[in-house]
Amino acid sequence: MAVYTDVSDDDLEAFLKRYDLGSVTAFKGIAEGVENSNFLLHTEKGRYILTLFEKRVKAEDLPFFVGLMQHYAAKGLACPRPVTDQHDQALGELCGRPALIVSFLNGVSLRRPQAHHCARLGQALAEFHLAGQDYALQRPNSLTLKDWPDLFNKIGARANSFSSGLSEMIGKELAYLKDNWPHGLPEGIIHADLFPDNVFFLKDRLSGFIDFYFACHDILLYDLAICMNAWCFEPDNAFNITKAQNLFQAYQNIRPLQELEKQSLPVLARAGALRFLLTRLYDWFATPDQALVQRKDPSEYLKKLQFHQSVNHFQDYGLLL
Amino acid sequence: MAVYTDVSDDDLEAFLKRYDLGSVTAFKGIAEGVENSNFLLHTEKGRYILTLFEKRVKAEDLPFFVGLMQHYAAKGLACPRPVTDQHDQALGELCGRPALIVSFLNGVSLRRPQAHHCARLGQALAEFHLAGQDYALQRPNSLTLKDWPDLFNKIGARANSFSSGLSEMIGKELAYLKDNWPHGLPEGIIHADLFPDNVFFLKDRLSGFIDFYFACHDILLYDLAICMNAWCFEPDNAFNITKAQNLFQAYQNIRPLQELEKQSLPVLARAGALRFLLTRLYDWFATPDQALVQRKDPSEYLKKLQFHQSVNHFQDYGLLL
Repeated sequence: MAVYTDVSDDDLEAFLKRYDLGSVTAFKGIAEGVENSNFLLHTEKGRYILTLFEKRVKAEDLPFFVGLMQHYAAKGLACPRPVTDQHDQALGELCGRPALIVSFLNGVSLRRPQAHHCARLGQALAEFHLAGQDYALQRPNSLTLKDWPDLFNKIGARANSFSSGLSEMIGKELAYLKDNWPHGLPEGIIHADLFPDNVFFLKDRLSGFIDFYFACHDILLYDLAICMNAWCFEPDNAFNITKAQNLFQAYQNIRPLQELEKQSLPVLARAGALRFLLTRLYDWFATPDQALVQRKDPSEYLKKLQFHQSVNHFQDYGLLL
Repeated sequence: MAVYTDVSDDDLEAFLKRYDLGSVTAFKGIAEGVENSNFLLHTEKGRYILTLFEKRVKAEDLPFFVGLMQHYAAKGLACPRPVTDQHDQALGELCGRPALIVSFLNGVSLRRPQAHHCARLGQALAEFHLAGQDYALQRPNSLTLKDWPDLFNKIGARANSFSSGLSEMIGKELAYLKDNWPHGLPEGIIHADLFPDNVFFLKDRLSGFIDFYFACHDILLYDLAICMNAWCFEPDNAFNITKAQNLFQAYQNIRPLQELEKQSLPVLARAGALRFLLTRLYDWFATPDQALVQRKDPSEYLKKLQFHQSVNHFQDYGLLL
């Protein structure tokens, strides 16, 4: 959590000339999102978040992300709405970086979501999946099966220095997922990073999703598997089947899962766990010990992967026939 | 600039039970202040800043700081106003740290203040100095003449690794300041860290001071000297006499300086420069290169000190007879 780019009052004032937001009443760097620089921006017209995109987000992907938020917001879904300038452009440039102003979304992210929060999540996720069906732009997932061998090679032998035998285990898992990858499942726009950090609540009401910068076109069920991994395990990594039942039931109230999707849940749960195990391992070795950015522990996703490896049937996740 | 302590929604909710602020609508870590953890807190009742005091601020000093903000706010001066709980207590505890909620102060800090901003600063500083005269609590300055030899010893020979001959120069300067320290000047509560970061403006109006956690009882003119050093030099470290004239004139419109104060400006300008040279040098060697906290460059204050060493008379600073 850090603000990477320092924006001066002069830079900001020059940038805001393009918008009809009135004069600035407050401007502060905020610790939200790990990949970009985010600022709280209060003006005479209201409250906003200003994001400067740092290098990890590709500039050519930005129209996809911005258009997606506009698409959802136009349909009344709860997410930040991009603010356009006098020429109807949402994306601008500030301090040499692509920059975007979005509306301020009320809500607080939960550290320890409860079972009823998982139901709210399931419902909202299904609504986003349906709302994304007619989104015109395309963006393939750049962190899926085809991309993992490369990431695994970059981590290399260091995996074993993290945990003995881990390298062999990941190699076998990659082979298993390649052989068992499901085909013919419903696809569409997925959020792909819907951790509790990225979901806001106002008391028990889900007030919106944020941080769409991993969104892409992929298997819809994969998004649900990522959510199950992120929301339905306890701090000791025990699986909480009540939370998963709530998640799936609320999701299916909006978009019932097909039989083939249900059958594919165990393999996509493994896939979702491996994806975060790999990126966390990579970041673990890429981040200096002394850095103030808190590294996320890869072992959490190693344990989740091991749990999924022991599961044989989707009913073990609380998903009903 | 970083958020050091992570506060969960559960911790926050439990903490806020003591207050009458309604439920939380937003909560985000903000990059404000280097020493403490600061959070933006929006509730049904309004906008606030929550501060957790990390170890650099001494717990026993907190009643002084909090009482001072209450004292200023009660007199209508522009600064954050501490929010009290149902038992009329401002200081609480959160995540094992002393915690304080203050009102949200509108305004933006300036990267490059202009001459007219220095006039606003001078006026507000004099008003704060006068308003502090009847503040009941005491806190001696812990970063003044008596404390510098110790700090200098901790830096030791590394000063010369920063700049050749620096150690000898600082030793001589410490001796000079000890021999020439002014006595009998008006004293009172000073802010002691009134850099542009800590002064908010709304357009050209000064909207308030923040970050009173170096405030203490000391020579009032020393505060003015610190402001001159921080506000009246250009990015290339050239002294801008117009800015200093504006600062002093506006200050004197509210509190005219005594003859002895004017005579003491050159020595206190040197003292103010040495204080920040020493702390920046100390932090320079104490902060790892890779840390995301941006180290402040000691050479800026070395150049300012060298400038002041060449000044003979207060009129050279634009201060009139």
